[in-house]
Amino acid sequence: MMQQPGRLIGLGVGPGDPELITLKALRLLRESPVVAYFVAKGKKGNAFGIIEAHLQDAQTLLPLVYPVTTEVLPAPLSYEQVISDFYDGASQELALHLDAGRDVAVICEGDPFFYGSYMYLHDRLAERYQAEVVPGVCSMLGGASVLGAPLVYRNQSLSVLSGVLPHDELKRRLADADAAVVMKLGRNFPKVRQVLEELGLAQRALYVERATMANQKIVPLDEVEPMSSPYFSLIIVPGERWQG
Amino acid sequence: MMQQPGRLIGLGVGPGDPELITLKALRLLRESPVVAYFVAKGKKGNAFGIIEAHLQDAQTLLPLVYPVTTEVLPAPLSYEQVISDFYDGASQELALHLDAGRDVAVICEGDPFFYGSYMYLHDRLAERYQAEVVPGVCSMLGGASVLGAPLVYRNQSLSVLSGVLPHDELKRRLADADAAVVMKLGRNFPKVRQVLEELGLAQRALYVERATMANQKIVPLDEVEPMSSPYFSLIIVPGERWQG
Repeated sequence: MMQQPGRLIGLGVGPGDPELITLKALRLLRESPVVAYFVAKGKKGNAFGIIEAHLQDAQTLLPLVYPVTTEVLPAPLSYEQVISDFYDGASQELALHLDAGRDVAVICEGDPFFYGSYMYLHDRLAERYQAEVVPGVCSMLGGASVLGAPLVYRNQSLSVLSGVLPHDELKRRLADADAAVVMKLGRNFPKVRQVLEELGLAQRALYVERATMANQKIVPLDEVEPMSSPYFSLIIVPGERWQG
Repeated sequence: MMQQPGRLIGLGVGPGDPELITLKALRLLRESPVVAYFVAKGKKGNAFGIIEAHLQDAQTLLPLVYPVTTEVLPAPLSYEQVISDFYDGASQELALHLDAGRDVAVICEGDPFFYGSYMYLHDRLAERYQAEVVPGVCSMLGGASVLGAPLVYRNQSLSVLSGVLPHDELKRRLADADAAVVMKLGRNFPKVRQVLEELGLAQRALYVERATMANQKIVPLDEVEPMSSPYFSLIIVPGERWQG
């Protein structure tokens, strides 16, 4: 008799505060025999830290360790090739469990479909296996909440932008947005702040590191140490308050 | 002795599935002596339906009933004035409880700061009272999850747009977006679909009504009855899959 394959579950666990996980994510986490998570070499991983307290001994942990920590690699290596191979291999690891009939929960910081690495496993596996995605509170809304910043009013447009974008594109898109969130700051921080200053938006912009996490830090934009901004920081330019 | 004022709590309860509430929202809901919620006249309200099962007898319910159901009002009435007066009155009602030392949880479908009516109470009260916002899973991520649609890859830009925008502005912004979500469809649906067709995006666009709710409906875009689209529907144009 054919074994009924397991389910692939993309599990959003929220922005950092362990209490910002949903009831559904917690239930599926507890029901999953295999728990997979992305992690940098030598680190525990943010997503893992969020759910660690809920794990049970009988669960199999499957860390998916990124092969690189930067997108800039020495020739002849290309980031795209290295990371693509990594996702291929991770998908094969997951498939072994799925084929054996075991559900695999891939825990994702924030939301699985909002800039999450889970998407690359989903794209490789969701056509062959039953896949379910549990949405989570994303980092930008975690950020808005701790900054006390209503994000978008009425019919305002919101632009979510990567700090990796080149100066001119970032400037054009920010100039056109009613409200904006810039993610992936890290080493891109000085460029992003420069653009905001050029547009006269620096006064309105708010900055937070590791929103809702235990080591969260809110700093006025002009006091941020340019090279100390971590990857998990973001800038919010809230929409103009509607006088309604 | 001065009474210590209560806390204002903006409580995101997620997109519709009652299981998509966070542990934190549930805890603060249970701890709040007063539970306020926006609702249309004669309706129960989506947010209320999500948390109803968790309410206890001792809690005071405070429905905030919208005075209008449309933004188009007969002269000399103006929507802006009517709704502004409504928020003023609602804030005064809340302030009575806060002054009496009672915490007030305002439950919000999705996330409080993502197009939520709570923002108008927050803007009126957060300077006078301690305010806390609990972020929630927003409708667009609820939508992406049930559509099985990864939303944004790597450094793609995401544009969140209101279906209320005029044809030309909607078209310009959609043409410039790597990925997009169009909210507030309702009577704007025919215009939005028309724009997507003009841009050649109709094939990529996905449509869902009341995502994650019990009466959720996923319909191919070209089969949607133009005038039957409810307000709580949205269109997602996912980012192009990254071949990583």
